[in-house]
Amino acid sequence: MTKKRILTGDRPTGAMHLGHYVGSIQHRVRLQEEYECFFIIADLHMLTTKQTPEDINNIRTNALEVAMANLACGIDPTKCTIYLQSAIHAVYEMNLIFEMLVTVPRLTRIPSLKDMAKGAGIEEMPFGLLGYPVLQAADILMPRAHLVPVGKDNQSHVEVTREIARRFNHQYGKGDEILPVPDYLVQGDTLIGLDGNAKMSKSLNNGIYLFDDVKTVNKKVNSMFTDPNRISADVPGRVDGNPVFIYHDRFNPNLEEVEDLKTRYRAGKVGDVEVKQKLAVAINNFLNPIRDRRGELEKDTGFVEQVIYEGTVRTSKEADATLLAMKKAMGLTGVWNKISRKGRKRLDKKGSIFTGEE
Amino acid sequence: MTKKRILTGDRPTGAMHLGHYVGSIQHRVRLQEEYECFFIIADLHMLTTKQTPEDINNIRTNALEVAMANLACGIDPTKCTIYLQSAIHAVYEMNLIFEMLVTVPRLTRIPSLKDMAKGAGIEEMPFGLLGYPVLQAADILMPRAHLVPVGKDNQSHVEVTREIARRFNHQYGKGDEILPVPDYLVQGDTLIGLDGNAKMSKSLNNGIYLFDDVKTVNKKVNSMFTDPNRISADVPGRVDGNPVFIYHDRFNPNLEEVEDLKTRYRAGKVGDVEVKQKLAVAINNFLNPIRDRRGELEKDTGFVEQVIYEGTVRTSKEADATLLAMKKAMGLTGVWNKISRKGRKRLDKKGSIFTGEE
Repeated sequence: MTKKRILTGDRPTGAMHLGHYVGSIQHRVRLQEEYECFFIIADLHMLTTKQTPEDINNIRTNALEVAMANLACGIDPTKCTIYLQSAIHAVYEMNLIFEMLVTVPRLTRIPSLKDMAKGAGIEEMPFGLLGYPVLQAADILMPRAHLVPVGKDNQSHVEVTREIARRFNHQYGKGDEILPVPDYLVQGDTLIGLDGNAKMSKSLNNGIYLFDDVKTVNKKVNSMFTDPNRISADVPGRVDGNPVFIYHDRFNPNLEEVEDLKTRYRAGKVGDVEVKQKLAVAINNFLNPIRDRRGELEKDTGFVEQVIYEGTVRTSKEADATLLAMKKAMGLTGVWNKISRKGRKRLDKKGSIFTGEE
Repeated sequence: MTKKRILTGDRPTGAMHLGHYVGSIQHRVRLQEEYECFFIIADLHMLTTKQTPEDINNIRTNALEVAMANLACGIDPTKCTIYLQSAIHAVYEMNLIFEMLVTVPRLTRIPSLKDMAKGAGIEEMPFGLLGYPVLQAADILMPRAHLVPVGKDNQSHVEVTREIARRFNHQYGKGDEILPVPDYLVQGDTLIGLDGNAKMSKSLNNGIYLFDDVKTVNKKVNSMFTDPNRISADVPGRVDGNPVFIYHDRFNPNLEEVEDLKTRYRAGKVGDVEVKQKLAVAINNFLNPIRDRRGELEKDTGFVEQVIYEGTVRTSKEADATLLAMKKAMGLTGVWNKISRKGRKRLDKKGSIFTGEE
C-alpha cells in the first residue's frame, strides 16, 4: 500500500527560528512516519515579494539553510523529498493552465495577500502576488498531494487549490479525478516572540534561531519581555501569557522545576534572572542535538546539496507525469503530437523548408 | 547585417476572412521582405476565453487553418517562422517571471480585456485573461522582437510589454538591455462587415472567408447590406460608407468599372444586382490565386505541419536562449547550477541517499 502524500515547505528567506519549529517543523518530523512528504523550497514564491538581484543571490544560501534546519531537526532524507521549486519545469506550465481556472475577484478576496504586500512595503498589488495561491495550487497538485499542513493564514490558499482541482476535474476529467482534491490540516500553533509580540518573526527581530549559539541564546533569553508590572523580584508576577513561562512550558522538560518557578513567581519569591537562566539552559539543551546534527551535516560536504538535487530530480519526474496527465485530459498533447509527427515525417523525406539550413 | 524582427500572429480560433487579410495578412506579406518575421499561433492565449475540451480539440485544425491562410496569401515559409505557442517551453517560465513585474491595477486599466470577457460571455474576469498582456510580453520578448504590428485594441497590450522590458532591464540589466524594448506599428485598417457592421468578425457571422468557394461568395455578396433607402434600381443611392462600394474599392482592380458603377448608382441608373454581381466576380478573382495556393498546399501532405514543426523547433531555440539570458541576469541560473553540481558530485561518489534506489 502506498503512503498518502503531503506537500509542505518554506520560502528560502533565511534562517529558521523556534517559531518555525513549533509551527511546522515539529509536525513534519511526526508526519514523515505516516506520509510520503514533499518539502518545497519555494523560491518562485519568494519572487512575488522579494525580487532584487540581492534577494535572488541569497536564494542558494537560504535554500541550503532551510534544508539544513529541517534535516537537523529530524527530517529523514531517505523518507522525504526536498526540492527546489524553480527547477521544476512543469510547475510553470501547470501555473499558466490553472490561471485560466480562477477569477480575479476570487483571488482579490483573500486577505493574506494584501497583508503580504503591506508587509513587504508594496503599494500596488503585483500580478504575481495575486497569483500566489495559483502557483501554490501547481505546487500542491503537482505531486498529487492528499494533505497540506497549513497555518491559519494559508488555509484560504489551499481552498483555492481545492477549487482549481475540482474545476479542472469537472471540465476535463469526464468523471475521473485527474487531480486529487487535497485536504488541509490546520496547525494553529504559533510561538510568542521574545518581545511579547504574538508571533516570533524574522521581520520583527524577536526570535531565537535554531542555530543560534549558546551565548546568543543566553543573551536573547536574558533580554526577554516578562511581566512589565513586576519591577522587582519581590513583587508577585503574572505567569499566564508571560513569554518566559510559555517558553518554559514548551522547551523545559523538567516539569517540577517549571512548577516551582511558577509558584515562586506568582508569590514574588523568585527573580527574573533565575527564571531566565533556567530557561536559557532548557533551550540550549533543546537546541544542542540540533546544533550537533548541523555540525555533522556540514562535515559531509555536498550532502545537503545532494538531498536537494536528488529530491528535485525525483519531483521533476512526478511533475512531468502530472502535467502529461493534465494535458492528455485537456486534449492539449494531441495538438502538438499530431502536428510534429506529420511535420517530422515530411522533413525526413524532403528535407528542411528553410533553405541552406540543417 | 541581420534583419530586425517582428512578432505577430493569430489565435487559432478558426477560418480567416477578408477582414483578417485587410487588417493584418496583407501587411505581413509586405513586412516579410524587410523583417525576420515570427508568426505565433497563440493557442495559450485562446485558453483565456475558450477552454472547453471541444475548443481545445479544435486547436489543431484551426492552427493548420491559420497557417494555411497565411501561406496561401503569400507568406513565405523560407523567410518566416510560424510556430505553436503552447509547444514553447520557455514562454511559460518567462510568463511567470514577468508576472512579478507588473501590477494588478495596471492590467485592470486595460479596457480591451473587459471587452474580451464580455464578448466571451464571461462574468467574472479570469485571472489568466487579466494576464493576457503579460503572456503576450513573453511572446514578444522571447524572440527579442523589435516591432509588433497591432490593431488599435492591442496597442495598450504592447505598452505593457514595453513597461515589462524596461522594468526587467532596469532591475536586472546593470545598464545592459537584456530585453530589447519593442516598438509597435499601428495598423488601423478594418473591413466593414457584409451586414454593414463596422467590423467583419467571425462572431457576427458577417464575413467572406479566404477559402469560401465561388458559390458561397456569390451568395454572400448577393445578400450584402447596401443603401437601405434605395428600394428600387431607379432611386439614387449613397456610395459613401456603402459596403458594396467599400469592397469594390478594395478588391476590384478595374477602376473604370468601379467609377462607372458609382456614377450610375448615385444617379439611380443601376440595379443592386449588377453592382453585386460585378463585386462577386472581383472578389472571386481576388480569392482565386489564394484558393489555388491552398489546393497546392493540400496536395503536399504534411507541408503545413512541417512549416509549423520546423518553426516551433527554431523558435524554441530562440526562446531558450532568451530565457537563459534573463535567468543569468537575474542570478537565477546560479542557484540551481551550484546546488546540482555539488549534489551530483557527491551522488557520484557516495551513491543515492534514497535507500534501494537508482
